[in-house]
Amino acid sequence: MDFDYSERTETYRRQLSDFMEAHVLPANHRYHALAGQGIYPLDVIEPLKARAHAQGLWNLFMPELEESDPGTRLSNLEYAPLAEIMGRVPWSSEVFNCSAPDTGNMEILKRFATPEQKARWLDPLMTGEIRSIVGLTEPDTASSDLTNLATTILPDGDHYIVNGRKWFSTGAKHPNAKLAIVFGISDTDEDADPHRKHSFILVPMDAPGVEVVRDVPIMHHHAPEGHCEVLFRNVRVPADAMLGQPGDGFMLAQARLGPGRIHHCMRTIGQCELALELMCSRALERRTFGKALADNANIQDWIATSRMEIDAARLLMLQTAFRMDRDGARAARVDVSAIKVTAARLQTQVLDRAIQVFGAAGLTPDTPLSFLWTWGRAMRFLDGPDEVHMRVIARNELKKAKGAAGANLWHFVPPQ
Amino acid sequence: MDFDYSERTETYRRQLSDFMEAHVLPANHRYHALAGQGIYPLDVIEPLKARAHAQGLWNLFMPELEESDPGTRLSNLEYAPLAEIMGRVPWSSEVFNCSAPDTGNMEILKRFATPEQKARWLDPLMTGEIRSIVGLTEPDTASSDLTNLATTILPDGDHYIVNGRKWFSTGAKHPNAKLAIVFGISDTDEDADPHRKHSFILVPMDAPGVEVVRDVPIMHHHAPEGHCEVLFRNVRVPADAMLGQPGDGFMLAQARLGPGRIHHCMRTIGQCELALELMCSRALERRTFGKALADNANIQDWIATSRMEIDAARLLMLQTAFRMDRDGARAARVDVSAIKVTAARLQTQVLDRAIQVFGAAGLTPDTPLSFLWTWGRAMRFLDGPDEVHMRVIARNELKKAKGAAGANLWHFVPPQ
Amino acid sequence: MDFDYSERTETYRRQLSDFMEAHVLPANHRYHALAGQGIYPLDVIEPLKARAHAQGLWNLFMPELEESDPGTRLSNLEYAPLAEIMGRVPWSSEVFNCSAPDTGNMEILKRFATPEQKARWLDPLMTGEIRSIVGLTEPDTASSDLTNLATTILPDGDHYIVNGRKWFSTGAKHPNAKLAIVFGISDTDEDADPHRKHSFILVPMDAPGVEVVRDVPIMHHHAPEGHCEVLFRNVRVPADAMLGQPGDGFMLAQARLGPGRIHHCMRTIGQCELALELMCSRALERRTFGKALADNANIQDWIATSRMEIDAARLLMLQTAFRMDRDGARAARVDVSAIKVTAARLQTQVLDRAIQVFGAAGLTPDTPLSFLWTWGRAMRFLDGPDEVHMRVIARNELKKAKGAAGANLWHFVPPQ
Amino acid sequence: MDFDYSERTETYRRQLSDFMEAHVLPANHRYHALAGQGIYPLDVIEPLKARAHAQGLWNLFMPELEESDPGTRLSNLEYAPLAEIMGRVPWSSEVFNCSAPDTGNMEILKRFATPEQKARWLDPLMTGEIRSIVGLTEPDTASSDLTNLATTILPDGDHYIVNGRKWFSTGAKHPNAKLAIVFGISDTDEDADPHRKHSFILVPMDAPGVEVVRDVPIMHHHAPEGHCEVLFRNVRVPADAMLGQPGDGFMLAQARLGPGRIHHCMRTIGQCELALELMCSRALERRTFGKALADNANIQDWIATSRMEIDAARLLMLQTAFRMDRDGARAARVDVSAIKVTAARLQTQVLDRAIQVFGAAGLTPDTPLSFLWTWGRAMRFLDGPDEVHMRVIARNELKKAKGAAGANLWHFVPPQ
Repeated sequence: MDFDYSERTETYRRQLSDFMEAHVLPANHRYHALAGQGIYPLDVIEPLKARAHAQGLWNLFMPELEESDPGTRLSNLEYAPLAEIMGRVPWSSEVFNCSAPDTGNMEILKRFATPEQKARWLDPLMTGEIRSIVGLTEPDTASSDLTNLATTILPDGDHYIVNGRKWFSTGAKHPNAKLAIVFGISDTDEDADPHRKHSFILVPMDAPGVEVVRDVPIMHHHAPEGHCEVLFRNVRVPADAMLGQPGDGFMLAQARLGPGRIHHCMRTIGQCELALELMCSRALERRTFGKALADNANIQDWIATSRMEIDAARLLMLQTAFRMDRDGARAARVDVSAIKVTAARLQTQVLDRAIQVFGAAGLTPDTPLSFLWTWGRAMRFLDGPDEVHMRVIARNELKKAKGAAGANLWHFVPPQ
Repeated sequence: MDFDYSERTETYRRQLSDFMEAHVLPANHRYHALAGQGIYPLDVIEPLKARAHAQGLWNLFMPELEESDPGTRLSNLEYAPLAEIMGRVPWSSEVFNCSAPDTGNMEILKRFATPEQKARWLDPLMTGEIRSIVGLTEPDTASSDLTNLATTILPDGDHYIVNGRKWFSTGAKHPNAKLAIVFGISDTDEDADPHRKHSFILVPMDAPGVEVVRDVPIMHHHAPEGHCEVLFRNVRVPADAMLGQPGDGFMLAQARLGPGRIHHCMRTIGQCELALELMCSRALERRTFGKALADNANIQDWIATSRMEIDAARLLMLQTAFRMDRDGARAARVDVSAIKVTAARLQTQVLDRAIQVFGAAGLTPDTPLSFLWTWGRAMRFLDGPDEVHMRVIARNELKKAKGAAGANLWHFVPPQ
Repeated sequence: MDFDYSERTETYRRQLSDFMEAHVLPANHRYHALAGQGIYPLDVIEPLKARAHAQGLWNLFMPELEESDPGTRLSNLEYAPLAEIMGRVPWSSEVFNCSAPDTGNMEILKRFATPEQKARWLDPLMTGEIRSIVGLTEPDTASSDLTNLATTILPDGDHYIVNGRKWFSTGAKHPNAKLAIVFGISDTDEDADPHRKHSFILVPMDAPGVEVVRDVPIMHHHAPEGHCEVLFRNVRVPADAMLGQPGDGFMLAQARLGPGRIHHCMRTIGQCELALELMCSRALERRTFGKALADNANIQDWIATSRMEIDAARLLMLQTAFRMDRDGARAARVDVSAIKVTAARLQTQVLDRAIQVFGAAGLTPDTPLSFLWTWGRAMRFLDGPDEVHMRVIARNELKKAKGAAGANLWHFVPPQ
Repeated sequence: MDFDYSERTETYRRQLSDFMEAHVLPANHRYHALAGQGIYPLDVIEPLKARAHAQGLWNLFMPELEESDPGTRLSNLEYAPLAEIMGRVPWSSEVFNCSAPDTGNMEILKRFATPEQKARWLDPLMTGEIRSIVGLTEPDTASSDLTNLATTILPDGDHYIVNGRKWFSTGAKHPNAKLAIVFGISDTDEDADPHRKHSFILVPMDAPGVEVVRDVPIMHHHAPEGHCEVLFRNVRVPADAMLGQPGDGFMLAQARLGPGRIHHCMRTIGQCELALELMCSRALERRTFGKALADNANIQDWIATSRMEIDAARLLMLQTAFRMDRDGARAARVDVSAIKVTAARLQTQVLDRAIQVFGAAGLTPDTPLSFLWTWGRAMRFLDGPDEVHMRVIARNELKKAKGAAGANLWHFVPPQ
């Protein structure tokens, strides 16, 4: 009757924290030094992956592993506090084979791929040999409404031809990126059910016609793995590259997004905790006008508000994880929308306060704050803009209200 | 591993909801009609009390009942969802003998009163025969800092003489108010420990020198039971009216406030739920410029934001209740401060949105919104202003940060 | 090239301030004492009116006076700082014959009434002999969309029959209220132009069928003059009681609201200034935890933010007044909407901070804060809810953008 | 009696807008293409400078020009709407010789430099031959309290030795940067007046010991001219490089910051206007779920709120400019603080909304929004963090309140 962590979770938390302390954090400077030179820091990451794999800190995100699969077997609720820890060093997720968008990709492959597709793509993803991208959002359409998307996946004999332009395809610059899972229109019949016209298809990154056009920086920040613009120009793939049935696109998109969205939220909470810790340390350390920043009541209010907001958001996140575990991602759809909006707002708010305590240093790459704040802003679009999620929540609430019309009449007081 | 309600809690929720539906809500109009005429609606309340007592819906708030005591035996965590239900009709708490400030008063009497004091005051409080007030806040001092309080409780032979002016003494206008528990300085020695100079004393409301000067309306609202200004002028009480030892005042004040504060929060959550329900119904019902209010994206955003905020606050409240049950009120002190601030802010925010959806009707007493909004504003002072609680939270956070100095160094990235 | 006040304005400001200081403020306690007993304080007000009239502080709000009319001749820009001063003591507007809704009523009578209507109603309003109400908003319709209003004004031979229920008719409880200006449907033809179907009609308050049903308190506050619910049941008025032509209702409503809306804003600014002054005094005076409230950085931030917001809002208000003077109320329509929303938000924000500085005393009627805060909430509906005004502003902005499509292309930077 | 622009101002606005349209905007893409390759776009800028100089659009910011000086002669009030126009294309200020920090540097050189100093540094700055930096903020001290700064400027015979580390020295990477104006401690006597211990000294950028250590990106954005970390290691300058008298540092810092701060605010307003225009165009253009974004009431609320906030801030800025012109920068000190805080907040708010309307595109460098939003965040520190400015405003307000103690007593109403 509590979200206190189970013994098992506590054990993993200790193990993961120790790993972070002993291996990841000491590599942080070198990671950034390499990334700063435009080199993907495989050097740093691969040995850490091997070590994490050896310790069983592997595929922590994946609840449904088969016996033959490498990795732990944690529920979403158990994974949450671990993702929080990883979130503190954003690049560390890869060390534990828990990076977006591979996590989401592995999940839908696990559930919907054919044995051949699994052998070719899922297995090397699960072992961390390769990485993958997802091609969803497009620069030329208002992609928050998926029916707007314009990429086509059209049958041509026993092949499909993929044409379209995607962007914010995270990971396309990663040296190990081998697979693109691409969303597009597979049925151009105007009269078809608009939610059965799209499909996902598996495209090798080295297929002719796939071009990583550019890395799109987010608020001027170039991620080493890239959030890329990728052009698919007459890309031919055999028919068996279709994931699920033609027309399954919407259903798969929903399935894919549930856990992915909440993983971002889990990491966000960890990043906000880090920001709060940094804010407190800095406030204790710096003095202006004869006293420590920490002695100013406005800064105390920022600290207290951050603490309250983080704690409340964490509970909302844990509850969502719990419900996903118990009832499935689909049933927890409204919860997922709620935590997604809540976490993204939280991150820009808490980070903004931390930056203000740091003064101009908070603007620089010398602290993690500048990246985390701008990333928080991106979170308000990632996996759907806030407004789309609030629409989902509001409609759900209004539906309940429709069902209960008149129930509240006694609460009104007639004029005396 | 969840805050989902236990079977036992669910049973009580059903029972209480049925009671509200069957007996309380239908009496709501008559309650307000009498209160509007300045009559305390005992007529309405006493039969409901009898019925509630008979059904065992009694003293729900009190976790530590002895066998001889009337009432249920619920933990704070179990009580929370019930208080939420009661909160929807603010006057209903009395029906279940769960009204402030009697609840807090009963708790400290239970823990600290002598057998004689218990027989005289606690027993009739537990059975609902009498009601009580607490004399804490003063009009002439900045009472958020208790060391400022100026009321005196000075020994005079085998008596104490009480002198002072209190206000916001809830319940002093109630026809059954018999007992005032008064806080004041009992040790005037300048050099004494400032946290051992105050005491609580039990003063009969009919003692000579006790005068209910006036009822102080909160945002123009006169509560039927009153939030009164009470004058204590040379009130003589025997030495055995002292609660606990002389100098125990601070300790008792702390003990008293923990559960009381969280009860307010529980009711707040229920009131916000009600406001959200009303907001949704109204938005579905009213049309302007050719569509229902509910079809406007701004109103949908208000609904969604309210839902997210309420859910997060409820979890924070349940977590606090859980920790109070497990670790005691003292250990959960920072949690209590956090939920106290969170709930008060929530109430003004959610209610403000609901009012806006209702239009001018939201300003009137015809809907519960106007009372709940102004009450929410009062909640930001009740049991201590927000700022005092945020100070508690911030100091706790800063203390942790002091203990962890240097822990975050690896997160900073040296200039390349 | 400045909104600094002209010499003439400064002279009036001094005169008005002196009057307030010498005559109005000293009467404030007695005014409230009488109002508190349910007596309309004519005793207090009538002698002050006579004195103000004698000093030429009369009808200050009315820019277009004829030679024979009593009163000053001030532009909106000149009136603004005077209304600010009056706003500090809300009841004082009546002393200078500047109360809502009489001001708006006088303005439309001045512009649209026949000589006979003027002689009967406008002249005694201008001299302050009688007062008037306006019947616009209705309890049973979403009145922010005027086409929803359901009151009817139907021809019956050489009379009109008025049927409907209005509320928030300010002033209906005033002992001198003699005239109701009522808005309703005068043309029931479904196919008629929806903006030419309504009219305003002049109804004597003592006409048979006019019933002041009740005073509707705003956030529990009963204004002495009332914001009343008024029932018009088969009220017969002669055809010459029609104001303007049948079907002029929308046009007159627009004409009426322009200046009235901005007067509220002017008074709001004054009320916020008062709140800021009170907040500062209290913060200097009260001490907690060893220092004055004013020494806390959070309270300093509230003070500074209030000062910035008030100053910015005042300038927006002065600019609107200037544009109304120069271009007319119709041309300044969007400006009026902007200051209306800005001022209402300002009032709740600044007052909220002031209340927090006052502690629980801020909830009581002992300070002006509780009334001003709740009144600020009502301001968000008065003369149209915020949302309707924001819609006006947004549409205007979007219209400009439509006209300028493509103008900004060079600001976008093509991917390199 | 209005802030409407004078005929003269309108003429300059037209001239400047035409210039922007005809020459600056068409060069925008090439500017960014070069800057993106790490090349300072002198190629683009120098010809534009020549043209602007020839047209008399030169040194627009400088109110007090002598006859021999090149440039217009505009008051701050006249300059404001021109700076607004320049703000829309941030790099364009240089075209008109109006870039920070040269503007502030020219102003203090003009007022305080010796004829020799002027000949060497001011003249080539006024003609745009060279550029300059200012060395104020330091990475290792809480620089919002200038008494914390640790750089030393110590006499050594007829020279001074400068030692210290500065950062956020804008322009140090500019190929024409020749002069650093450095702030530091020139009097190490502990007992000296803490506001007379600092000085400004003129340091040639090519002096031995001056090292531009690195460019510090602001939120990952590298400005072509750099916001650099600059090390001064035993830099020897002759005694006549002292600006003003030893100990004048604080006075000069104040003099320097007044106009500079408000120039940023003027440009901010222009940037917010641009963001609002872009937001509107995009909202009209994009469709989701069957309608244009512009048809959603939440987006309309963002547009309306932005319009209201921008207009109010512009007026506050114009009023400050007017007061600076009339009363001097010192007298307008509190006004400058107010507009500084207001404008910085405005920029992050308006830009945040614009980004949300743009969706993920708003995160990219393809639109100007990402730079303007992150720049707005930096504005909250530039020339002093918000909190320092709010402290100035609050103290001023509290000082007034102290002088008026008791003035408001009549506003309180004694209990009836």
